[in-house]
Amino acid sequence: MVGETLQIGLAGLGTVGSGVYEALLRNRDLLEARAQISYQVRRIAVRDKTRKRGVEVDETLLTDDWRDLVDDDEIDIVIELIGGTTEAYQLVRAALEKGKPVVTGNKALLAEYGSTLFRLSREKGVPLYFEASCGGGIPIVQSLQHSLICNKVSAVVGIINGTSNYVLTAMDKEGLSLREALQQAQSLGYAEPDPLLDINGWDAAHKGLILAMLAYGAPLGSEAISVTGIEHIEPVDFSFARRLGYTIKLLVVIRYHERRNALELRVQPSFVPQQHLLSKVDGVFNAIAVCGDIVGETIFYGRGAGKNPTSSAVVGDVVLAMRECRLPGYHTGFLPYAEGVKALPVEATETSCYVRFRVKDCHGVIASIATIFSQHDIGIAATSSAEGEHDGTEGWNHLVFMLHVCCWGQLQEALGDIRKLPTVVGEPVVLRIESFQTS
Amino acid sequence: MVGETLQIGLAGLGTVGSGVYEALLRNRDLLEARAQISYQVRRIAVRDKTRKRGVEVDETLLTDDWRDLVDDDEIDIVIELIGGTTEAYQLVRAALEKGKPVVTGNKALLAEYGSTLFRLSREKGVPLYFEASCGGGIPIVQSLQHSLICNKVSAVVGIINGTSNYVLTAMDKEGLSLREALQQAQSLGYAEPDPLLDINGWDAAHKGLILAMLAYGAPLGSEAISVTGIEHIEPVDFSFARRLGYTIKLLVVIRYHERRNALELRVQPSFVPQQHLLSKVDGVFNAIAVCGDIVGETIFYGRGAGKNPTSSAVVGDVVLAMRECRLPGYHTGFLPYAEGVKALPVEATETSCYVRFRVKDCHGVIASIATIFSQHDIGIAATSSAEGEHDGTEGWNHLVFMLHVCCWGQLQEALGDIRKLPTVVGEPVVLRIESFQTS
Repeated sequence: MVGETLQIGLAGLGTVGSGVYEALLRNRDLLEARAQISYQVRRIAVRDKTRKRGVEVDETLLTDDWRDLVDDDEIDIVIELIGGTTEAYQLVRAALEKGKPVVTGNKALLAEYGSTLFRLSREKGVPLYFEASCGGGIPIVQSLQHSLICNKVSAVVGIINGTSNYVLTAMDKEGLSLREALQQAQSLGYAEPDPLLDINGWDAAHKGLILAMLAYGAPLGSEAISVTGIEHIEPVDFSFARRLGYTIKLLVVIRYHERRNALELRVQPSFVPQQHLLSKVDGVFNAIAVCGDIVGETIFYGRGAGKNPTSSAVVGDVVLAMRECRLPGYHTGFLPYAEGVKALPVEATETSCYVRFRVKDCHGVIASIATIFSQHDIGIAATSSAEGEHDGTEGWNHLVFMLHVCCWGQLQEALGDIRKLPTVVGEPVVLRIESFQTS
Repeated sequence: MVGETLQIGLAGLGTVGSGVYEALLRNRDLLEARAQISYQVRRIAVRDKTRKRGVEVDETLLTDDWRDLVDDDEIDIVIELIGGTTEAYQLVRAALEKGKPVVTGNKALLAEYGSTLFRLSREKGVPLYFEASCGGGIPIVQSLQHSLICNKVSAVVGIINGTSNYVLTAMDKEGLSLREALQQAQSLGYAEPDPLLDINGWDAAHKGLILAMLAYGAPLGSEAISVTGIEHIEPVDFSFARRLGYTIKLLVVIRYHERRNALELRVQPSFVPQQHLLSKVDGVFNAIAVCGDIVGETIFYGRGAGKNPTSSAVVGDVVLAMRECRLPGYHTGFLPYAEGVKALPVEATETSCYVRFRVKDCHGVIASIATIFSQHDIGIAATSSAEGEHDGTEGWNHLVFMLHVCCWGQLQEALGDIRKLPTVVGEPVVLRIESFQTS
């Protein structure tokens, strides 16, 4: 602190870092009036001091060693926006150990080291803020920590990856293939050059682990979450979905099973009923539904990524950090409170399902697939078929089964048997059909 | 305070009061673990101690004089849930003067005395919390005060009255008349026996004034808001809306005009584009869209009323109050920061509009109405007609004009002239067509 002015150390001046720097300068009057705090950005750590940037920065603030932020005794708060999990982990650890509150938006860091860092934060009595790690500008973290604090959360269901939601929306509304939709997203800057983690579900999974820690105090690692991406979705799945009254969304689903004290935790493309608000969340937008025993269903909607929305979340946390760091020993941040909670094995999770097979001939094959499902005690709600493309000399068809609620493990066993049928070609596409009870 | 245990004084044990009492008892373990605070309800003020209640309460806690809460030095926090604006005002005032933080859900109180009470709160350094006064369980107040704090808010647009939204949804989806829809709402307990303030827009207006104070620090009174209810909406308006790609919702609209430093503040039934998420908010649910210069558009959705959702908001505030009241001089609550902001006169507000006339004969009358609009420089985007009911011996028609953006004042002048036409019967129904720019 210099006089009454709080000193901020900013690590990282990439997209979000420069957005945060701009927001802190641009709306300074507003922030100082609202929060009744004066502040200054004292030091900015960057990888390469000579690099050209989109934002104008006083060169004398720059350092290429993040340790300068930690070692400067005048710095009150550290903002970590360097990304990655190696240096970021060292930085956050060192700052907490030095008693400096940290604001981070690094979901990979928290998914990997969250429980270690939160334990350290608790031991040291130094808060770690992370609103920006989940859902961009959507205030889901502060809402779960504060406004909804009296609720037992029964479920959190969300669309929390903007890139994959953009791709699914473009496939649905414009009839594009996954590859075309992804190219469109990249050309508009909505997808990174390497969108692997967006498409394979792991970006959403990292955020899901953070939401699970937040809502249940469950320090679960990546082994606890079952993840399927959108790679295998085809345009024909959207036609089936539409006809059946659904929309396809990549969902993170976190559901607490009180009887077993276990958490169902999964990411996968799912059928969402067209009447449910989540089915209307299009493009790069995110939305997170939280069901609490007292509040019922609430939904938070907004831009889940991008420079500005993420900056809004970071600066919200910075203000909280500034307010709280004037009060030693006081912080409202994260505290795990249910360390005993386990992950429910994915095999034991239950939903209805949509299963699409490629089959060479529909007639005999419906009966033979239905027989196998029945042998495995899985009820069929409906079947439907559509003509597939011609595959060399032979044609084939899409054959869809809508299944009643069954265990995921049970379904996998049935699919194992069905795969052996000579008329079934390749891997089936399986989508969960999510049910939403509003309490 | 008794030992380390915070003492709560609860005023009011009606629907919300008993919900809060139950929530504080039922999820006590969770709350104490999450907030790391122990608490006790020490005294409950009720109007009539002998009355039967839906909740079991230790009789010795009851008093029929709210002054007992204020005068008890051990009581740390007062929860005001007695409703009305006379005794509630005295109670909140007295508690703040005694240095006791207050949690209230009383929108009428804040709409009427908000600026006085917030000034007192600031002078005394004693916080006043009011999450439950707006949007029930939706954490809009804390989100605006904390998570979104760095944003200049350009607009807040919301559906914040559950009863009227239930009525509009039933008229739209089930083709009911307003009277039938209201009876349905009453028989399901979604509307009070006297739903006047829900239907005429004033309940939404009270909440709108609170949102305006919150987002802009504008201590505006009821004279600052222009209010139209849903009384004159008829089933035929829904058919027109649907055909034109809209849904009818009772909206509160708060829009900041930076150039004039003025706030547009109004409640009226409006056309919402069917692609916008607010058009999908049905039944008793509420939703509030907030546009910030940094975060872009965010939407908060949930149950806007009822015992439990409102209790969730009250208890969230109580926890914040408990945390903050251990730190004298510290609070993150409301502080007006733009006292200079004025209300924009409704005549100067601009939107497109839908206007429906009852006319005796369509042929000549389209030309004569169009001529008057043109004389007043108001552009017509489209006209449409539908047959009305037979009115005694003569039939008449509905004639709709979709108008380009114009000033409300200009429109009123044109309508004054149109009313004089002999073929126009009764009052026209005017609905605003809201535009939503996502930034």
